[in-house]
Amino acid sequence: MYAAGDVRVETVADPTIQQPTDAIVRVTQACICGSDLHPYHSMQASEQGSPMGHELIGIVEEIGAAVTTLKVGDFVIAPFAFQDNTCVFCREGVQTSCIHGGFYGSPEIGGLQAELARIPQADGSLVVVPGVDAAALGRGENAQLAASLLTLSDVYLTGYHAAHMGRVEAGKTVTVIGDGAVGLSAVLAAKQLGAERIILMGRHTSRTDLGVEFGATDVVAERGDDGIGKVMDLTNGEGSHVVLEAVGHMPAYEQAYGIVRPGGVISRVGVPQYEDAPIGFGSLFGKNVTLTGGPAPVRAYMEPAIQQVLNGDINPGRVFDRTIGIDEVPAGYAAMDAREALKVLVQM
Amino acid sequence: MYAAGDVRVETVADPTIQQPTDAIVRVTQACICGSDLHPYHSMQASEQGSPMGHELIGIVEEIGAAVTTLKVGDFVIAPFAFQDNTCVFCREGVQTSCIHGGFYGSPEIGGLQAELARIPQADGSLVVVPGVDAAALGRGENAQLAASLLTLSDVYLTGYHAAHMGRVEAGKTVTVIGDGAVGLSAVLAAKQLGAERIILMGRHTSRTDLGVEFGATDVVAERGDDGIGKVMDLTNGEGSHVVLEAVGHMPAYEQAYGIVRPGGVISRVGVPQYEDAPIGFGSLFGKNVTLTGGPAPVRAYMEPAIQQVLNGDINPGRVFDRTIGIDEVPAGYAAMDAREALKVLVQM
Repeated sequence: MYAAGDVRVETVADPTIQQPTDAIVRVTQACICGSDLHPYHSMQASEQGSPMGHELIGIVEEIGAAVTTLKVGDFVIAPFAFQDNTCVFCREGVQTSCIHGGFYGSPEIGGLQAELARIPQADGSLVVVPGVDAAALGRGENAQLAASLLTLSDVYLTGYHAAHMGRVEAGKTVTVIGDGAVGLSAVLAAKQLGAERIILMGRHTSRTDLGVEFGATDVVAERGDDGIGKVMDLTNGEGSHVVLEAVGHMPAYEQAYGIVRPGGVISRVGVPQYEDAPIGFGSLFGKNVTLTGGPAPVRAYMEPAIQQVLNGDINPGRVFDRTIGIDEVPAGYAAMDAREALKVLVQM
Repeated sequence: MYAAGDVRVETVADPTIQQPTDAIVRVTQACICGSDLHPYHSMQASEQGSPMGHELIGIVEEIGAAVTTLKVGDFVIAPFAFQDNTCVFCREGVQTSCIHGGFYGSPEIGGLQAELARIPQADGSLVVVPGVDAAALGRGENAQLAASLLTLSDVYLTGYHAAHMGRVEAGKTVTVIGDGAVGLSAVLAAKQLGAERIILMGRHTSRTDLGVEFGATDVVAERGDDGIGKVMDLTNGEGSHVVLEAVGHMPAYEQAYGIVRPGGVISRVGVPQYEDAPIGFGSLFGKNVTLTGGPAPVRAYMEPAIQQVLNGDINPGRVFDRTIGIDEVPAGYAAMDAREALKVLVQM
């Protein structure tokens, strides 16, 4: 990406092992994230540009000398952040704060919307998927399996993180704000965690219809005060035990504290496009509301989620509604930005 | 209180039963709260004035026709907020949000720094202390017992709420911001909940000394960036698992997010003297920090705490360092405001 709205596909030098802990992965499927749209709207023009993408599945092509848990040919998922998965914060389940970790997309680290990718801290940053015929993935009925595995790189497990941190459990009323791919993933995760009632706030019928298939029991199309009033009506005037905020803009946060119940939880996974916001007596404190969330440490949730996908218990890949080749990536950004596509898969 | 700094002791008409759910309590001990100092600093002059106080222990003098769990002569503690203790939010443990509840100190409800007090929703708002000789309380060794029971009305259980909501448990490093009576109570509660290390941030040696007796393992007198640096040094650069914020001013909140560890919890019980504050990527979100807390639903914690006090397991009444009669209440406010007294008990 060279500027807001300016995405180009370029042939660059193949990535190489730079550290003995690196691996090179041949990408089979990558995708475009809702968070990629933030720079797509606001990036200052840059001569150097930024490599894009932070989600992939693929096949290990080469490993550094210090890599011990991977071998060439392994089929892997890359969590959207890299981490050693051994430091004190990783051990505490906050891999996105790994002392030796970081995020893709800088010129030094590179991006994952690419045919080949360098993965730092490969032992911690790649998770092997057992027993999958990688050569067949992406074709026929395997295309849906590939899509679901790819969501574990970010979008489904980001929704899961929201629900997990929000302490969703049986008997709880959960409201999800946002009908993007993360919001719909949060609906699916809330259903997995046993939520009794799931209210989805979103106004794009094609998306909220998928939300209903994922487990939403109610859909609220209204926003702002009207949306708050509707959720309060649906909850007997009491509010929602848990609110999963999957947007990141201030109006979504304001909606969240408007509908959360006393003693409830707001769990945010939409990257906040604000720094200061109301948290005093009138918003959070007076009602004993808990605010939680952040960048999802998807590595922490990966193994059981892989099993759920392989078993067919969940099918989170349904959030992809368009598949393109790498040359079409600029058009993929435009389609997501125009909301013509919910989430775009890049088949290499 | 008629204005900032203007507290008067006045003889007014005795309170009477107004609702069949009311009770009248003859106060034996009341006290002055740190939160009473906020209007003491900022109250606009008022002809009518505000009755003050929200903490008491005493003896039931009269009950309304609908009161079923109390009898005249019972020795009781009044939680600082009144509640029916049966509504949906009370049943969920958020009694400070009771649908039929509220706070003392309005002209309609009255205050508890008084010889007699009307208690609304008395069945939910008064808790009987079994087996105590009320007539002897306040004299000799019973004075300490009375003081500790009185702290269950607010200050100790507010500190406990901070620790409980912060999920303090064995093995955790806990930092308490504030060496007022609530902060010291939070230290004692964190110790009760098994915290491995308790860092107390405060600069009044006489107070932090009591904090050490309550269980603090380290004291940090520095504030702001120096204080943050000191706590980070003490925690191997990692930060504190739990931060209990017992002040309510913005610099204390800024300290809190500066020292909290990735994945950690900030639990606030100091009433925020701000509404907007940083909660974006750079403060809470990026580190997956949880923010929690609010007005303590002390009713939820009362029965086990009474037993702990009666058994002598805890002695939270040590936060009182001055006892006065009701005529000296204005001097008591002045002494707390000047930090000459940590917390003032009013012996009727």
